[in-house]
Amino acid sequence: MTGEFAELAAIQAMLPAPSAPGEVWMGDDAAVLGLPDATWLLLAADTVVAGVHADLALTGLDDFGWKALAASVSDIAAMGGRPLHSLVTVAGPPGTDLGLLYEGLRVAAAEHACPIVGGDLANAPSLVVTVAVTGSCERAPVLRSGARPGDGIWVTGPLGASAAGLRCYQERAVARVGGTATAPCRALMLAHARPRARLSAGLAARDGGATAMIDVSDGLSADLGHVADASGVGIRLDRVPVAEGATEEDALGGGEDFELVFCAADPGRVGEAFAGLPAPLRIGVCTEDPGERTLAGRPLALTGWEHRW
Amino acid sequence: MTGEFAELAAIQAMLPAPSAPGEVWMGDDAAVLGLPDATWLLLAADTVVAGVHADLALTGLDDFGWKALAASVSDIAAMGGRPLHSLVTVAGPPGTDLGLLYEGLRVAAAEHACPIVGGDLANAPSLVVTVAVTGSCERAPVLRSGARPGDGIWVTGPLGASAAGLRCYQERAVARVGGTATAPCRALMLAHARPRARLSAGLAARDGGATAMIDVSDGLSADLGHVADASGVGIRLDRVPVAEGATEEDALGGGEDFELVFCAADPGRVGEAFAGLPAPLRIGVCTEDPGERTLAGRPLALTGWEHRW
Repeated sequence: MTGEFAELAAIQAMLPAPSAPGEVWMGDDAAVLGLPDATWLLLAADTVVAGVHADLALTGLDDFGWKALAASVSDIAAMGGRPLHSLVTVAGPPGTDLGLLYEGLRVAAAEHACPIVGGDLANAPSLVVTVAVTGSCERAPVLRSGARPGDGIWVTGPLGASAAGLRCYQERAVARVGGTATAPCRALMLAHARPRARLSAGLAARDGGATAMIDVSDGLSADLGHVADASGVGIRLDRVPVAEGATEEDALGGGEDFELVFCAADPGRVGEAFAGLPAPLRIGVCTEDPGERTLAGRPLALTGWEHRW
Repeated sequence: MTGEFAELAAIQAMLPAPSAPGEVWMGDDAAVLGLPDATWLLLAADTVVAGVHADLALTGLDDFGWKALAASVSDIAAMGGRPLHSLVTVAGPPGTDLGLLYEGLRVAAAEHACPIVGGDLANAPSLVVTVAVTGSCERAPVLRSGARPGDGIWVTGPLGASAAGLRCYQERAVARVGGTATAPCRALMLAHARPRARLSAGLAARDGGATAMIDVSDGLSADLGHVADASGVGIRLDRVPVAEGATEEDALGGGEDFELVFCAADPGRVGEAFAGLPAPLRIGVCTEDPGERTLAGRPLALTGWEHRW
């Protein structure tokens, strides 16, 4: 059995690479394709699977639909782009409450300004929802590969809320206390069930001179590892901001927070670009040694979600 | 339980409609979106499910990948467009031979000039492959809704080969005769395992003044019914061209042939546009009475594939 990232690399090696300057096909959060007016079209797709990405005994089909859409739009945010349109395909068993599923998809599409323009329905033994999104970028999108030694590393907010929110749902289910979650738990559960793509933060990071960016979908250490691999830099973290009620383990390995992590050379420019938005948190620096992955001087554990093949 | 087409209509009614002139969101083979240079971007996505769209005891994972890609590109052909790029998402169990699956996807992408530029991998209990495609159309795409009474109805080739090819696979499996299929069966099996999107025919139909078009994915009577519903016309067929080795039932209800059916007012213009290509076959005429659905004077049976919900 191999891991998702090794399989993705093997697939990328099988497939042709782009020939047009500036285009990026596989290997980043979204593909980058040239448009006739010299702007860029972004394309990304994410799949969510019932029982794998969400426990439908804990959260609703509407939450599942929301997450499917938000996860794909987050890939556009991670490029510094704006979403345009989405296609939704649903494979699932007869009896699936499509009305509830699409209610979550519809609200997420409205909240993220990414209308659903088509898709497909097919029967399958278990529920799989795929959302493909297009996005636009009037200037060069922010890739994973542009970080340089000396660049600072920022995250757009504290991490781990989604993983901690899942724990709240699980504890509530065991205690059978219904809707009486504590206030911190309510915020964490919302972060788990209704994560939002950080579109404004992605645009600000791009305007702030971000050299590399990724969204925290698999977990900070895994996702930042992709940036380090693509950019050929080391990672030296001073700290990891942990969401209230979450643990450092949640923050490092939980994933699905959809906060953005980015690298940039000029803290002043970053600060200016984020004026009016929650200030991003500087958590470390890119280093010369591509083998370095440390947090407060200790090795950064490579935790986080990876599908197995 | 309800049918796929009723559910799609209910979903379409939940979701916002386009406001930009000329744009089409849900309800056609592909969404039609305006581009800054006044051409059109097409977006479509199709999902294929192991055990539903293909029996992997009969055909290979590479064939499955091929079909997933060809089915989506066929939606671009049915608009009179050219494919641009594809995104492939694979949800499936550990142990799935991704190399074989992507080999079929790779070859189909090359054959259809629709390179794979991204996608996603995720674990799921059963194999579901979704392909989203973009396409371009320098002039207005051919919708399902433009047919008028008096327009002729054409199909780009004889039908039923895919359904007959599946039967050949099933008979060979029962007889355990290995690779010794008869010559007609070999052609039908190829049509089943490696269907091709009729891109050149779609462009020719558009140039020949097609007023409405669809690809035969669910079966001629179901797919032509979508055109009749969208256009508000009746359907009077004289005949149905049946592929060698197939039955009329295969041709009417088999689906997945990916031939195109189109309506057009001027047979001479159609003939000129198809010069150098296999001539399309005129099979009937659109009529005033939207309730008419006949074949050689008898009611046209509404057979064909529909997922259940």
